[in-house]
Amino acid sequence: MNDPLLFSEVRSAETVAASFGEETEPRLKQVMTSLVRHLHDFIKEVELTDAEWEAAIDFLTRTGQSCTPVRQEFILLSDVLGVSMLVETINNRSLDVATESTVLGPFHMVESPPREHGENIALDGKGEQCLVTGRVTNESGEPVPGAQVDVWQANDEGFYDVQQPEVQPERNLRGVFTADDTGEFWFRSIVPRYYPIPDDGPVGQLLEATHRHPHRPAHMHFQVTAPQHRPLTTHLFVDGCPYIGSDVVFGVKESLIRRFDLVDDPDRAAELGFDNPFRAVHFDITLFSENGKEVHQ
Amino acid sequence: MNDPLLFSEVRSAETVAASFGEETEPRLKQVMTSLVRHLHDFIKEVELTDAEWEAAIDFLTRTGQSCTPVRQEFILLSDVLGVSMLVETINNRSLDVATESTVLGPFHMVESPPREHGENIALDGKGEQCLVTGRVTNESGEPVPGAQVDVWQANDEGFYDVQQPEVQPERNLRGVFTADDTGEFWFRSIVPRYYPIPDDGPVGQLLEATHRHPHRPAHMHFQVTAPQHRPLTTHLFVDGCPYIGSDVVFGVKESLIRRFDLVDDPDRAAELGFDNPFRAVHFDITLFSENGKEVHQ
Ligand SMILES: [Fe+2]
Ligand SMILES: [Fe+2]
Repeated sequence: MNDPLLFSEVRSAETVAASFGEETEPRLKQVMTSLVRHLHDFIKEVELTDAEWEAAIDFLTRTGQSCTPVRQEFILLSDVLGVSMLVETINNRSLDVATESTVLGPFHMVESPPREHGENIALDGKGEQCLVTGRVTNESGEPVPGAQVDVWQANDEGFYDVQQPEVQPERNLRGVFTADDTGEFWFRSIVPRYYPIPDDGPVGQLLEATHRHPHRPAHMHFQVTAPQHRPLTTHLFVDGCPYIGSDVVFGVKESLIRRFDLVDDPDRAAELGFDNPFRAVHFDITLFSENGKEVHQ
Repeated sequence: MNDPLLFSEVRSAETVAASFGEETEPRLKQVMTSLVRHLHDFIKEVELTDAEWEAAIDFLTRTGQSCTPVRQEFILLSDVLGVSMLVETINNRSLDVATESTVLGPFHMVESPPREHGENIALDGKGEQCLVTGRVTNESGEPVPGAQVDVWQANDEGFYDVQQPEVQPERNLRGVFTADDTGEFWFRSIVPRYYPIPDDGPVGQLLEATHRHPHRPAHMHFQVTAPQHRPLTTHLFVDGCPYIGSDVVFGVKESLIRRFDLVDDPDRAAELGFDNPFRAVHFDITLFSENGKEVHQ
């Protein structure tokens, strides 16, 4: 037998770590050892009381029991504690070269509808009309023709199509565009609105207790893929919109905010079939090519 | 508005902490701030992957959904990660003076049956007969007459009465004794056996993945209370029993292990109504009086 695993306050984390058997898969052992050490450090630092421990057990239990096939309360918890953003960021570092990533969120559709450049994805035409343009390049500035640019967003009232199946047309405000020979893409849409995450469960109670609002600032989701390039999951954020500086899930990175400029150009508006004036935003995307990440490290 | 809460890997925890509103109850703010910092430190240290994050979300969800009115899987998780013992210990430091504490466990009964000194709490008489003696004093060695000594234990097969209602007599192996004028208590029982915690849920899977057994070494539970004294929740562990050096919930502290000596004394055996030889154990208990803890700090 190894050293007996007798408990003491000082060596508590080492004792738990020593219980993990030698046959344990090395990465699991590494992760669990680190988890236990940081968890014990936290408890020691705040000297967690019995009542606080009981409240934590109760909170975690209710969080698990709130999960349903259409509601993942533990992901929400991860989101509002910045954990989802941290994991996303660590696994997709931009190295000040590629476009920065942000969270996927729950409203992505595996099979979004393919669209032609210029198509209007606002199928119901409701909201402030907006032209979106951009270009996909690699880390050397070379275009990435054929890149798939998957876009989805909330409507003018802050709802995704799947949240309002009786109100919005099917696949409203979604589309997959294929970058052209110069890497460019463009489409018509509307300016999205901010919206709250579901806050009627345990996570909502935590937000209330810590005096936080439940809102995400207005954004368009992008998922951009191309063969031999690292996939990118990100958002384009609307500069100056409510909550831009206080996203409940901490999804906003400074580099992802763009002005949605008001354009007063009757001829261009007529060309687009828009009322004048209208909004326009430009969002260039840089992907790492196969070896780009290594080169820039 | 304060500084905008824009995300960066380096300042992730500070950004989340800055989201907690000024009106937040100060202790909650302190606990959540520390929790977020240690949680982010853990994720950064191991560079948690997306797949590992997904496995963690799934594990926590299943743990919550395994909880029922008679099964608290999150407490089990807290137990096997040493968290329950750490919280218990931090909140009941013995300061090398009082008897050390350990976890309460799920089998305590709010109203245990009062018993007279010398009574046999092994109502079915099954198991290795054992005499238990002890004395309750304060930190100055003065007796604490009238101290309530609440005792409960598993039987010779590792089951508590409430786990085997059809097999064991009601309130088998439980009793509350009142310390006499010299602080002493004594009773007859049997030597308890080791037993597993419930391991057919997510926590059992974690134990298996980390190559740990699910057992607790043999012990008697004690909860000792007296007016103007700090209550004590602890165990008496059987020296040399299986798993004494590898308790799955890390409940064993060296100071709580006692030899259950084999006594060969036909006259004493006859007096006790025991077969000869029999076992005997002595367990003195030191409580902090009202000001004892402060005096010894
Ligand atoms: Fe969204
Ligand atoms: Fe027990």
